[in-house]
Amino acid sequence: MRKPLNVPYKIYLSENEIPTKWYNVRADMKNKPAPLLNPGTLKPLTHDELLPVFCDELVRQELDNDTAYVDIPAEIQDFYKMYRPSPLIHATYLERALDTPAHIFYKFEGNNTSGSHKLNSAIAQAYYAKKQGLTGITTETGAGQWGTALSMACAYFDLDCKVYMVKVSYEQKPFRREVMRTYGASVTPSPSMDTAIGRKINAEHPGTTGSLGCAISEAVEVATGTEGYRYVLGSVLNQVLLHQSVIGLETKAACEKYGIEPDIIIGCAGGGSNLGGLISPFMGEKLRGEKDYRFIAVEPASCPSLTRGKYAYDFCDTGMVCPMAKMYTLGHDFIPSANHAGGLRYHGMSPVLSQLYDDGLMEAKSVEQTAVFEAAEKFARVEGILPAPESAHAIRAAVDEALKCKEIGEEKTIIFGLTGTGYFDMTAYEAFNDGKMTDYIPTDADLQRGFDSLPKVDL
Amino acid sequence: MRKPLNVPYKIYLSENEIPTKWYNVRADMKNKPAPLLNPGTLKPLTHDELLPVFCDELVRQELDNDTAYVDIPAEIQDFYKMYRPSPLIHATYLERALDTPAHIFYKFEGNNTSGSHKLNSAIAQAYYAKKQGLTGITTETGAGQWGTALSMACAYFDLDCKVYMVKVSYEQKPFRREVMRTYGASVTPSPSMDTAIGRKINAEHPGTTGSLGCAISEAVEVATGTEGYRYVLGSVLNQVLLHQSVIGLETKAACEKYGIEPDIIIGCAGGGSNLGGLISPFMGEKLRGEKDYRFIAVEPASCPSLTRGKYAYDFCDTGMVCPMAKMYTLGHDFIPSANHAGGLRYHGMSPVLSQLYDDGLMEAKSVEQTAVFEAAEKFARVEGILPAPESAHAIRAAVDEALKCKEIGEEKTIIFGLTGTGYFDMTAYEAFNDGKMTDYIPTDADLQRGFDSLPKVDL
Repeated sequence: MRKPLNVPYKIYLSENEIPTKWYNVRADMKNKPAPLLNPGTLKPLTHDELLPVFCDELVRQELDNDTAYVDIPAEIQDFYKMYRPSPLIHATYLERALDTPAHIFYKFEGNNTSGSHKLNSAIAQAYYAKKQGLTGITTETGAGQWGTALSMACAYFDLDCKVYMVKVSYEQKPFRREVMRTYGASVTPSPSMDTAIGRKINAEHPGTTGSLGCAISEAVEVATGTEGYRYVLGSVLNQVLLHQSVIGLETKAACEKYGIEPDIIIGCAGGGSNLGGLISPFMGEKLRGEKDYRFIAVEPASCPSLTRGKYAYDFCDTGMVCPMAKMYTLGHDFIPSANHAGGLRYHGMSPVLSQLYDDGLMEAKSVEQTAVFEAAEKFARVEGILPAPESAHAIRAAVDEALKCKEIGEEKTIIFGLTGTGYFDMTAYEAFNDGKMTDYIPTDADLQRGFDSLPKVDL
Repeated sequence: MRKPLNVPYKIYLSENEIPTKWYNVRADMKNKPAPLLNPGTLKPLTHDELLPVFCDELVRQELDNDTAYVDIPAEIQDFYKMYRPSPLIHATYLERALDTPAHIFYKFEGNNTSGSHKLNSAIAQAYYAKKQGLTGITTETGAGQWGTALSMACAYFDLDCKVYMVKVSYEQKPFRREVMRTYGASVTPSPSMDTAIGRKINAEHPGTTGSLGCAISEAVEVATGTEGYRYVLGSVLNQVLLHQSVIGLETKAACEKYGIEPDIIIGCAGGGSNLGGLISPFMGEKLRGEKDYRFIAVEPASCPSLTRGKYAYDFCDTGMVCPMAKMYTLGHDFIPSANHAGGLRYHGMSPVLSQLYDDGLMEAKSVEQTAVFEAAEKFARVEGILPAPESAHAIRAAVDEALKCKEIGEEKTIIFGLTGTGYFDMTAYEAFNDGKMTDYIPTDADLQRGFDSLPKVDL
């Protein structure tokens, strides 16, 4: 028997309920995530070794496994007020369409111009760069959500922003590129002729359309070689999960205010920034033995780092210029097929989430692309929001759980993260609308080729 | 001396503060808008004459100049809850950037997948069609905002939706097209070979890229020739202004709740749907002598129907298949230049707004395109929201008024309508980013060519 919930359709906390501290889930983990390694020495990277690459305060946050709560500076809180709190939406229209006894909620992070949750960490990273007196930051972007978010953050703090955009996206996603330029960023197709690594790759692979790995290498080269610059990254890192905890903290505050008791919390997982941020405070309760939840990471079947990868040390980038991280990985040479969810095409996974998964604290499942777009279309039509393909992975899993509830007559409460909107992904929707979308599942041999690139690390 | 306002940055009313009645400003107008004419008889169109084109209830609303408040059906209120109330945002970041003593607020209607205020009327029109037992509706779309909104509304009520999209937009805006298709609409480039008028135009003008006038003619032909279909329109009509009054009613409720007393209310004006909706309840107070406000309609210098047009009877469409309306018009043959704000490229203006303007109750100004995009870029960088080019006309005027306040040291309160987001308008932003945007002001001779097409009506 379905019990009606006495909650509004959209729960908006007030501005003074925006969290004033981020939550660092590492503080409550018994098994801490493995440290980043210096690939030369195979020793954990020290604070000082990281300073030429990252801003000082971000290095501190990256390495701090102990502090549970970190103050959000007033300037960042000010910016958060522009678009936060984000709504926790009771998916009543979807529930009705599925005829499920489950209660479904989603935390919607797409109502800002960057179109995704990426802004939560972009503004923090830009702030610390500005505070340190830097003049600019560099980064890479693939699908463009992170680059857009960073451009907005840099415009706000009047910082230079150099974005290396994978050449194929630069050409195929001119709208994303123009949003970044409107916010004052310089956007360079990668590989470029501005950097040594870019020139080398262009010489070795004439006509290459680039890769995220190459763009990372270029952005790092420019950051470390330019006075007053540092490099920033939008996912995978511990610091990013810390900033993104604002998603989970708001979700938890809304649940507590309205007596919502989630059983299952679901998020899509590429590098882990959204999922890690959403589940952190709930995971904290589970780690401290206060409550129990099911957490489900959803990844594309075409890039299944958690469900089919290995838990091992690997390079964070294809170009092997970045540190090594212990994570679930398909190998840094693994080339995901042309899956449209650009934000989920990463060979590895956040070390924090990898450790939690390895400890059995979180589940993972992979879903196929056409099933994802079927769920996306249904969701768009009944809930009104056109989801990003990445976010639609979480929708698929939430719908499947809700249908399971219907089958067995259980009244579970499901929360999922709706990380962004799909306005810049209409090429993928077009393929789906035209019936031309295909699925791709790598064979064991495909995966083996990726695993063969794993560094031989014997610690 | 600037007095701080004690209001949150974003004012979100609660869901139970969404208006339950629309407000019909015609009820308070001493000089009613002139009636639509049957071009054959030059007599006012009767209820019965309009029934083959529009849904019954919408005909009633179109002709009703007396009822001040109209109940919003529960089903429409339900849908409104998906994306309303929309926020009234205190533009503190913009105020700071302009260093103005003015208080600036904007009502943001872009936080829904259609990306604009058009959804407010689309859902109402789809509802009345469904309630009447129709199976489908037809419409035309230029830039695509209206077509997108209508597709969403039809998906919600499970109605067929046939959109005739101006061919040049169909080809140049494939993303808009795909959003509509994702919501289940059929989208046909106009002129098509499906209709008599389309075949005629294709035969007479081989290779034509279409026009809004032609798309209207096709949509009307299909609606009137198909059992169970009617035609719907997203602007100009009285019924549309009625539905859009939800914008103004929410704005007024938020002002009253937080003690905000607007001096100036500004909106962009193409056909008048947004401006009419935003100002209606405030205009009602002015008409009843309760309060005074300055209202400013902002139009592009390239299509200046209020500031340089004539107040005369004219056809609503280029193809002369629609009724004649008395309005400020540039003549139905006036061809606006390639101005990027597609939503403002209409030769006429809502009869209601035309009458109010003619009675001196509202001001109008025209602005040039590069100045509009300068304001849009500044706004995006400080307020975080990337505005639609249409909406940016209102931003330009609001910024100019705020700078005037600074010059003369006046602390006015300005509210403007931010009707939508610019995600699908990045081609225009690209031209601006590249310094390739130009301005165009029609000469008197250009205008005369349009005026020459005005029908000779002697009443």
